[in-house]
Amino acid sequence: MSDFDCVIRGGTVATASDTFQADIGITQGRIAALGTKLGRGTREIDATGRLVLPGGIDSHVHVAQPSGSAAVSADTFASATLAAAFGGNSCIMPFALQEDGKSLRQAVSDYHALASGQCAVDYAFHLIVSRADAQTVGQDLPALIRDGYKSLKVYMTYDSLKLSDYDILKVMAVARRENAFVMVHAENDGVIRHLTEVLELAGQTAPIGHALSRPLLAEREAAGRAIALSEVAGVPIMIVHVSGRETMEEIRRAQSRGHPIHAETCPQYLVLTSDDLNDLNMDGEKFICSPPPRDLDSQKACWEGLRQVFAVFSSDHAPFRFGGGDGKRPEGKRTSFRWVPNGIPGIETRLPILFSEGVGKRRIDLNRFVALTATNHARLYGLKHKGTIAPGYDADIAIWHPEMEETISQAILHHGSDYTPYEGLKVKGWPVSLLLRGEPVILDRRLAGPVDRGRACDRAL
Amino acid sequence: MSDFDCVIRGGTVATASDTFQADIGITQGRIAALGTKLGRGTREIDATGRLVLPGGIDSHVHVAQPSGSAAVSADTFASATLAAAFGGNSCIMPFALQEDGKSLRQAVSDYHALASGQCAVDYAFHLIVSRADAQTVGQDLPALIRDGYKSLKVYMTYDSLKLSDYDILKVMAVARRENAFVMVHAENDGVIRHLTEVLELAGQTAPIGHALSRPLLAEREAAGRAIALSEVAGVPIMIVHVSGRETMEEIRRAQSRGHPIHAETCPQYLVLTSDDLNDLNMDGEKFICSPPPRDLDSQKACWEGLRQVFAVFSSDHAPFRFGGGDGKRPEGKRTSFRWVPNGIPGIETRLPILFSEGVGKRRIDLNRFVALTATNHARLYGLKHKGTIAPGYDADIAIWHPEMEETISQAILHHGSDYTPYEGLKVKGWPVSLLLRGEPVILDRRLAGPVDRGRACDRAL
Amino acid sequence: MSDFDCVIRGGTVATASDTFQADIGITQGRIAALGTKLGRGTREIDATGRLVLPGGIDSHVHVAQPSGSAAVSADTFASATLAAAFGGNSCIMPFALQEDGKSLRQAVSDYHALASGQCAVDYAFHLIVSRADAQTVGQDLPALIRDGYKSLKVYMTYDSLKLSDYDILKVMAVARRENAFVMVHAENDGVIRHLTEVLELAGQTAPIGHALSRPLLAEREAAGRAIALSEVAGVPIMIVHVSGRETMEEIRRAQSRGHPIHAETCPQYLVLTSDDLNDLNMDGEKFICSPPPRDLDSQKACWEGLRQVFAVFSSDHAPFRFGGGDGKRPEGKRTSFRWVPNGIPGIETRLPILFSEGVGKRRIDLNRFVALTATNHARLYGLKHKGTIAPGYDADIAIWHPEMEETISQAILHHGSDYTPYEGLKVKGWPVSLLLRGEPVILDRRLAGPVDRGRACDRAL
Amino acid sequence: MSDFDCVIRGGTVATASDTFQADIGITQGRIAALGTKLGRGTREIDATGRLVLPGGIDSHVHVAQPSGSAAVSADTFASATLAAAFGGNSCIMPFALQEDGKSLRQAVSDYHALASGQCAVDYAFHLIVSRADAQTVGQDLPALIRDGYKSLKVYMTYDSLKLSDYDILKVMAVARRENAFVMVHAENDGVIRHLTEVLELAGQTAPIGHALSRPLLAEREAAGRAIALSEVAGVPIMIVHVSGRETMEEIRRAQSRGHPIHAETCPQYLVLTSDDLNDLNMDGEKFICSPPPRDLDSQKACWEGLRQVFAVFSSDHAPFRFGGGDGKRPEGKRTSFRWVPNGIPGIETRLPILFSEGVGKRRIDLNRFVALTATNHARLYGLKHKGTIAPGYDADIAIWHPEMEETISQAILHHGSDYTPYEGLKVKGWPVSLLLRGEPVILDRRLAGPVDRGRACDRAL
Repeated sequence: MSDFDCVIRGGTVATASDTFQADIGITQGRIAALGTKLGRGTREIDATGRLVLPGGIDSHVHVAQPSGSAAVSADTFASATLAAAFGGNSCIMPFALQEDGKSLRQAVSDYHALASGQCAVDYAFHLIVSRADAQTVGQDLPALIRDGYKSLKVYMTYDSLKLSDYDILKVMAVARRENAFVMVHAENDGVIRHLTEVLELAGQTAPIGHALSRPLLAEREAAGRAIALSEVAGVPIMIVHVSGRETMEEIRRAQSRGHPIHAETCPQYLVLTSDDLNDLNMDGEKFICSPPPRDLDSQKACWEGLRQVFAVFSSDHAPFRFGGGDGKRPEGKRTSFRWVPNGIPGIETRLPILFSEGVGKRRIDLNRFVALTATNHARLYGLKHKGTIAPGYDADIAIWHPEMEETISQAILHHGSDYTPYEGLKVKGWPVSLLLRGEPVILDRRLAGPVDRGRACDRAL
Repeated sequence: MSDFDCVIRGGTVATASDTFQADIGITQGRIAALGTKLGRGTREIDATGRLVLPGGIDSHVHVAQPSGSAAVSADTFASATLAAAFGGNSCIMPFALQEDGKSLRQAVSDYHALASGQCAVDYAFHLIVSRADAQTVGQDLPALIRDGYKSLKVYMTYDSLKLSDYDILKVMAVARRENAFVMVHAENDGVIRHLTEVLELAGQTAPIGHALSRPLLAEREAAGRAIALSEVAGVPIMIVHVSGRETMEEIRRAQSRGHPIHAETCPQYLVLTSDDLNDLNMDGEKFICSPPPRDLDSQKACWEGLRQVFAVFSSDHAPFRFGGGDGKRPEGKRTSFRWVPNGIPGIETRLPILFSEGVGKRRIDLNRFVALTATNHARLYGLKHKGTIAPGYDADIAIWHPEMEETISQAILHHGSDYTPYEGLKVKGWPVSLLLRGEPVILDRRLAGPVDRGRACDRAL
Repeated sequence: MSDFDCVIRGGTVATASDTFQADIGITQGRIAALGTKLGRGTREIDATGRLVLPGGIDSHVHVAQPSGSAAVSADTFASATLAAAFGGNSCIMPFALQEDGKSLRQAVSDYHALASGQCAVDYAFHLIVSRADAQTVGQDLPALIRDGYKSLKVYMTYDSLKLSDYDILKVMAVARRENAFVMVHAENDGVIRHLTEVLELAGQTAPIGHALSRPLLAEREAAGRAIALSEVAGVPIMIVHVSGRETMEEIRRAQSRGHPIHAETCPQYLVLTSDDLNDLNMDGEKFICSPPPRDLDSQKACWEGLRQVFAVFSSDHAPFRFGGGDGKRPEGKRTSFRWVPNGIPGIETRLPILFSEGVGKRRIDLNRFVALTATNHARLYGLKHKGTIAPGYDADIAIWHPEMEETISQAILHHGSDYTPYEGLKVKGWPVSLLLRGEPVILDRRLAGPVDRGRACDRAL
Repeated sequence: MSDFDCVIRGGTVATASDTFQADIGITQGRIAALGTKLGRGTREIDATGRLVLPGGIDSHVHVAQPSGSAAVSADTFASATLAAAFGGNSCIMPFALQEDGKSLRQAVSDYHALASGQCAVDYAFHLIVSRADAQTVGQDLPALIRDGYKSLKVYMTYDSLKLSDYDILKVMAVARRENAFVMVHAENDGVIRHLTEVLELAGQTAPIGHALSRPLLAEREAAGRAIALSEVAGVPIMIVHVSGRETMEEIRRAQSRGHPIHAETCPQYLVLTSDDLNDLNMDGEKFICSPPPRDLDSQKACWEGLRQVFAVFSSDHAPFRFGGGDGKRPEGKRTSFRWVPNGIPGIETRLPILFSEGVGKRRIDLNRFVALTATNHARLYGLKHKGTIAPGYDADIAIWHPEMEETISQAILHHGSDYTPYEGLKVKGWPVSLLLRGEPVILDRRLAGPVDRGRACDRAL
């Protein structure tokens, strides 16, 4: 008789704080034991020479969301979660978007319907609050928070999403009372609108115009304002997708004042720059996301920030199809960068990029990698049983080959987009196997189990 | 035959940079000569033992403006300019407010009609741009700037005045193109609205609620935003009525980046605190202005700032009548601090307070006093021929008795308000005489000339 | 037959990143397994309702060191390590001080002789480099680092210890080449000497003079200088015993530049102030340590810093006897605070104070407590096998009763000093049992094993 | 009969705050009147189309000083002051250096002996305090301050000059008590010594080694320390020759705290960089000064600083002869940059460079130019009757041709050095005439008066 359902044997285990040699014994989907010499498992997985890490959690992904410019997102929950799994993730956090004319409660139901039974990994929804009307703020939002939707996002830009400062404060007040965590997309809407008009008037409609219309100071300003609002409301917040030094400086100043500001950065701010948007033809569209990638100094700043300022590293996966060289823009909307849907795919490449460029190049250590990619996501967003390797936690485990060399290419990816902005990037280190609650999804880079076991997570803050 | 129309003899003259003993010879309203032994004047004024300074310029006064809460401003141009003169000022800069349904051009005409022939001292109008519609931004504003209206003010709060970030950028773009100077009232409207509702819900409707609803961080945030907008637009701006350290820190950081941000503070931030609003009865209303006075640390910060951060020191004179103890609020609007008109009188007391508390207590020197109260106003707002004592400049001169002791009291003031928030403040040093373009308005604290010689100033930037 | 030598069963285990319910199986002094239901141990310890934490590591303690003022340190290795054990610590890091005329190599030998066979817990020595002569810097120091002495301390003050900037750079260059970690006592010697003379001339010789002669800015300056020197040398450093906000600001700025500055604070900067030195009689001497405790704002700053700026929390234990009310000063040296030996006892109270005031009052969470008191010490100073609870690590484990209430008092302590500066402080939470490499030293607050099993640790960086 | 001894007619006069058209009437060496139409002068100077400015004051020049490396300074008081006059200066402030074995009092006498009757312009000595012994600090220094030597300089580097922090505090305490102003040469001596040894060991002995051995952070550190010492002592200080952004940041932070730190920069930090030292042959020596010129970002920072951070702009003139291509180093001392005397000539080129690059390129305005080059020097160092154009002040006047184009070249200069580091720099605007106390020294770029009228200035603070 086996002692465990499964034993992962002989690997080097890393948590957000520790690294050690240990076998991992799994029973009923949970980690039952860590030990130097554990008993037999019904299934035995040899991890000799491998790193055994908590499965990645990507807390910032857009799946099956409509885009403001009417383009259709390129991923279903099936394709997104499969790509996530191949990229070393066992959990994603997509958004339940409150669209015009729909209640927040309905939005949540609709997204659950889309996800249910379709997911290769577990998931938990953030709410996007795009209206602060009485129904939303007075009834749906508090009720949903009590139902376990412990995180919500507000936007300071985009016509269909943005809330005024006054409305953000209303939402924050509910978050404070009900104990939810507020994420903020911080860019100054007026600046973007103004510069877009100025650029278009000057005939600058090429993709680089996207970057020029959303300068770092539009982000710095909005982040500073979001911080001020959170100080008024007395709530912690998460500034998502921070792209450069000046924004970080606002965050650091708030942290120095003792105010609990959390921040996130993404792969695009570490390895891309706005020069990538400056392609002579439409290829620049492949790199259009918001905020846009900045410059080399911003990259350097973001790398530094990963050691201290940033709590989480996410993909902001928002995939679109580029088509046959026609660009991301829908037919008839190719007159300006303004109509290019904002977003790039990244769910499958987030972890290899950070591992290779970060851990491999000694910019961060392995424990910090685990914290940034799994543990801190679970803690901040209240994913019970997720985010670490310890007895009692879900056996969500990624096994990494630390020496495997790979070149990122659309050909090897599983997302729904038809390109990757990281085409050609050479990396060292790859997640070769993934267990979801004790059952293999991928073994040695091959699909090795059902792709519909993913389920919604329990949450508590 | 006299050499000059008038000679002011034997005084100690101070400019923004220099202090020297000299006689001042005046011809045809202008300073013709400064010298150690000038010839005779048709009129001779003995200034032995006196300080002879450029007449004060108060570049932030509200005269005959309607208030958002329907209270009537307590001053006419006649009373305001008489008070200004008795307070040592030879020029004021009131606002031409674009009211709802009225064009900016019409507003300017209307205010000129109110002022013309009524003023004891010279004046120049700032424009208040309260709408960014095509008529205003596309036609009236550029034309008025070309007509010499080189300064304009935008508001980030007040329902009837506030512009969105987008609209502020539009206005700034015009200012950049036409070379005008933008003043900003920087307070975050959403924060104020939110906190006002929170306070009223909690029953905190007393005057102190005004201060609680407009915390320093609402000002800090808006100032930071205004700075960011000005960086986008590429224009210098003036942040008016800065009240405390955190706002100053935003300004200092911009100045350190090399961006031309100018700033103003006012007497209420040097000698009042929010405790003054905390009066048990309605007397707290006497101190309601926006931003509100803060605390002792903010006072300290503002004093430090007068040495370097602030370019100008103004009154933000906005007088209301308190009536027979009924408070400033109009009949039937006494349910909350929300309805108290924002503003306090200060046109007549600005200079004695800064002289006594600043120069007298060695916080600033006499040259800095001149710069802060006259020279820098003239330079920044383009008042040709004003702001200093030098050949060719208008003979706008205030003669101060540096040792005269006085107690500020409503009884000695000439403004239209029926109280002063500085009642009982003892000062040392008082402006005893004032010449407007060479002619006495006041001599030895008595009216000594016509009170209707004031005229609109020539301007250039 | 038992599966393990010992099993700690049913407790809540916390590491620097995770908290979980688990049994701990121990074999041959090491942690063999963590699991939800482990097999039998020869010894079974019930930890139900208890917290099971890594044994504390106190990386800043002075044991059996001479004091500059000739007073004898109040602790032997026997008493200090016993006190450490009762205070929840399984490892201390005392100093091997290079005294005048003695080689660094000899100092190490001498301290080992004092410690060997006397210690209740494990230990590892930091070197104190008090001369930068050719023998020390060219031979002894590199050789000792290669022998495993991976950390060394330099002083910027104290006549018998201080190195010049030039000499510190020499030492840092060796540390860089040989891969050792430099700790810095940062106070400006010239400022202290100057102010001491000024105070004595003014007759201010009472204990409070100690605090007045060592203002925070003397620490801020020296920390800034140490940081600059480390930037020149290209080495990370540890600024020890940081006492207030301004020093932290220097550290934060360096961290923001991406430079690896680490910092430590101590209990005295969290719960004492300089007012404690201001006692009317000699009792003020009980609180004399360097840097001195500051004020309430500094306490607040240090608490904030524990969340981010500080990597380690140590005691800076440096005990002296107060005698029969005669003060700490040796006979015949009672003319001035200058002669009071600098240092207070704290080895036994460090952890309960931080647990109660920090974890208990929600200023930090339990995982941060573990990081600050154990894990980070082990990582930064290269204590292999120490600092966490994971398979393969030394079974150095403290069991805490999180609800136990206690009042700190000399009567319950085991250190060699005859007083505690924390007399009367009420705390909640106490370390009731301690295992050293799998063997109990203390069980339920009673001595339960030999007190001489402590040994020198293996180290690697 | 003439009304004045001399009238300068028709020019545009500028002071530190004002610009105006006026004639200047001069009587008995002093300015008697400024006016739009003054009477006749015995001498009439036509300044139509010219700028009439206060004569430049260069408060940081080394004349006839020995260099630490035994090279002889290239200027006598005669040559230095003649060069100063041709460069638009009417007053210089050289140093009275206390050499080894000589009393400070004796040093002052010796320098007066060298200067007396030799100077083309006025002068006032700063003291250099190079020892803090009892005679110097207890007797000579206080007595000399009372005699009018109101400024003194301390060095933090150079073997023969440097004072310890403790000694600097002693000197500052005297300065506070006696009301003198302390100038600080701020570079960290230990860093320079360490890096010099490291560079020499690595064979990097070429001139660029000078820049590498004195990095900006050595200056930043020392400036920070000097500021801290001045805060302890409670005195304002002047940080001389600031060369880059990081040092400025230390100064700004102190100014923000309200502490009176003044700062100076020099032409070499505006138009040279360390690349100039990187010449393949010995020509790099021509640019060796301390601190060394930095990079383009530092230049940018210094230009920004001229608008606000810096109070004075000086030359730090310290000329050596380059000889026949043999470099500045004395015979037999050419093994390393270490032996190159530190210093470059600049007394004659300071004003044209700032005028052309600063005023001409609109980085500063004309009034700021006057403040930075004349008025602020007179105010801070207590030169009564100097530094502005106003009745009663010395008629020290420079007349500038604002449109004259010139190429800086050794051929047109009058200093004792045999090269200029600015060879080939094209400038627009040149000081064509100079009056010293009412008498012409230079008219239309030709010597027009005696060159021995310069005398020591009266001083008061």
